[in-house]
Amino acid sequence: MLDYPLLAALAAVIRTGSFERAAQQLHVTPSAVSQRVKLLEERLGSVLVVRGQPCTGTAAGQRLCQHVEQVALLESELRGALPGLAPADGPTTLRIAVNADSLATWFIAAMAEVPGCLFDLVLDDQDHSAEWLRKGEVLAAVTASTAPVPGCNSHPLGALRYRATASPDYMRRHFADGVSAAALAGAPCLTFNRKDRLQVQWLRLALGGMAPGDVPAPPTHWLPSTHAFVDGALAGLGWGMNPEPLVADHLAAGRLVELVPGRPLDVPLHWQQSRIASTTLADLSRAVLRAGRRELHPDGTAAG
Amino acid sequence: MLDYPLLAALAAVIRTGSFERAAQQLHVTPSAVSQRVKLLEERLGSVLVVRGQPCTGTAAGQRLCQHVEQVALLESELRGALPGLAPADGPTTLRIAVNADSLATWFIAAMAEVPGCLFDLVLDDQDHSAEWLRKGEVLAAVTASTAPVPGCNSHPLGALRYRATASPDYMRRHFADGVSAAALAGAPCLTFNRKDRLQVQWLRLALGGMAPGDVPAPPTHWLPSTHAFVDGALAGLGWGMNPEPLVADHLAAGRLVELVPGRPLDVPLHWQQSRIASTTLADLSRAVLRAGRRELHPDGTAAG
Repeated sequence: MLDYPLLAALAAVIRTGSFERAAQQLHVTPSAVSQRVKLLEERLGSVLVVRGQPCTGTAAGQRLCQHVEQVALLESELRGALPGLAPADGPTTLRIAVNADSLATWFIAAMAEVPGCLFDLVLDDQDHSAEWLRKGEVLAAVTASTAPVPGCNSHPLGALRYRATASPDYMRRHFADGVSAAALAGAPCLTFNRKDRLQVQWLRLALGGMAPGDVPAPPTHWLPSTHAFVDGALAGLGWGMNPEPLVADHLAAGRLVELVPGRPLDVPLHWQQSRIASTTLADLSRAVLRAGRRELHPDGTAAG
Repeated sequence: MLDYPLLAALAAVIRTGSFERAAQQLHVTPSAVSQRVKLLEERLGSVLVVRGQPCTGTAAGQRLCQHVEQVALLESELRGALPGLAPADGPTTLRIAVNADSLATWFIAAMAEVPGCLFDLVLDDQDHSAEWLRKGEVLAAVTASTAPVPGCNSHPLGALRYRATASPDYMRRHFADGVSAAALAGAPCLTFNRKDRLQVQWLRLALGGMAPGDVPAPPTHWLPSTHAFVDGALAGLGWGMNPEPLVADHLAAGRLVELVPGRPLDVPLHWQQSRIASTTLADLSRAVLRAGRRELHPDGTAAG
């Protein structure tokens, strides 16, 4: 078996970002934590922690850290079954990858249904969140990816509906003569980050099956925050694909308008979860599927 | 002089994240972009782009990209002075580092006052945003750091006020016997990411000058989103340091309460901007300082 006191010290440093906070969490001195991590690094012959502000794990360090958390999760199950065991060191932490727009609209309701569990959320684009699962860095992910990651189950959640929205003033400035391909090519849009393809997907849809190379590439602001997207649209900075739940009131009140009324973009989402036997993870999965059914739009894949 | 058509191709690939989108932006074929980047890499003898989904710059690639954008900014100034020059390829993009809480509360109002300019925002903790400026990756930053970065001017903005907040139900569950050090040590809090020290700073303040090693280290959720912090507090997941502008209504309505009434934490912010001669950047700086004066709390350093 691996040396778990050493591994626990490593995981605490990587998760808290500092030797001091890890020491506090483990109720030992920072120098004890430092010795344990050094010993582990010597045994493995590789650096596991990049010392900095904050301290971060190397690829090997991250992998070990993930292993420690999976073992802790299994231990918490065992304690449920065998109450005579020594009490746990603390509540279980589930590391989950989720797209920012789900977090901003429906995911927190699911989290709140699993009390007594701590969450460590990794935010990534829905087209990339499954990679965290594939790398073993999270236990579950909200993802656009339908193909199950090896070792995981995949469940359809329904679709998050997006509306291409801008302020009325912005529409007057850029689309006084209508929302044409030429006008779209010159009107600034909002893009979350380099992974965000939603604006391009909507342009292709709205312009009716244009070849990818012909779809206009508008000038863009890079704005990596879901609510900043809404605020940026309200302030007239540009148009962007905003989740319907966040803009429905603004649309009804006329503070935002759709570029092309009645032309939403639906993004089907899936819940992929590790098959690791954990009642906490199973509880979360049930809560997530319930919240998805409640808050998302049923879509074609939901029947599959 | 450097070979700018090659550099422009490199910058477009790194900024858009793909050879195809770079080609579209530059109105050339993807193969032409690919050849230009390869030629540049051969001349420099180092890889500049990590090919992937999305493509990203290596450290050298990022540095060249930043140079191209500074030159483009200087060119846009020149075009203002000499209208006879060939028209610009597109609007100027300003790359700025800002903390997520400023973006969520007051920064977009400043951005909206500088029309005709595109923004490329990098989000980072206020204690770390100045590093982007130091590395030359952004032209300006909203930062907690007072010491001017070399080559930059620093202006005090005022302080963003935070309130330690939780839901009434959460308070009943965890602080029925009062907000003591012992109760705080067991009650889950929210932490944005490994760089976020606000909860610890507030604990130290609220518990009256405790030695750093004695401040409780509560169990925590990791929740890297400003609005998810507010939503997480409302849902009873934990307590967290929330920006006053986002929770004032919730506090007034009793949906959230302060852990210790009337014990806020003020975080003084500064605007640090590169001394590069740019009227666009100067316009933004004036708008940022105005928005800061309007939306932030005057603090001691504001008089300096």
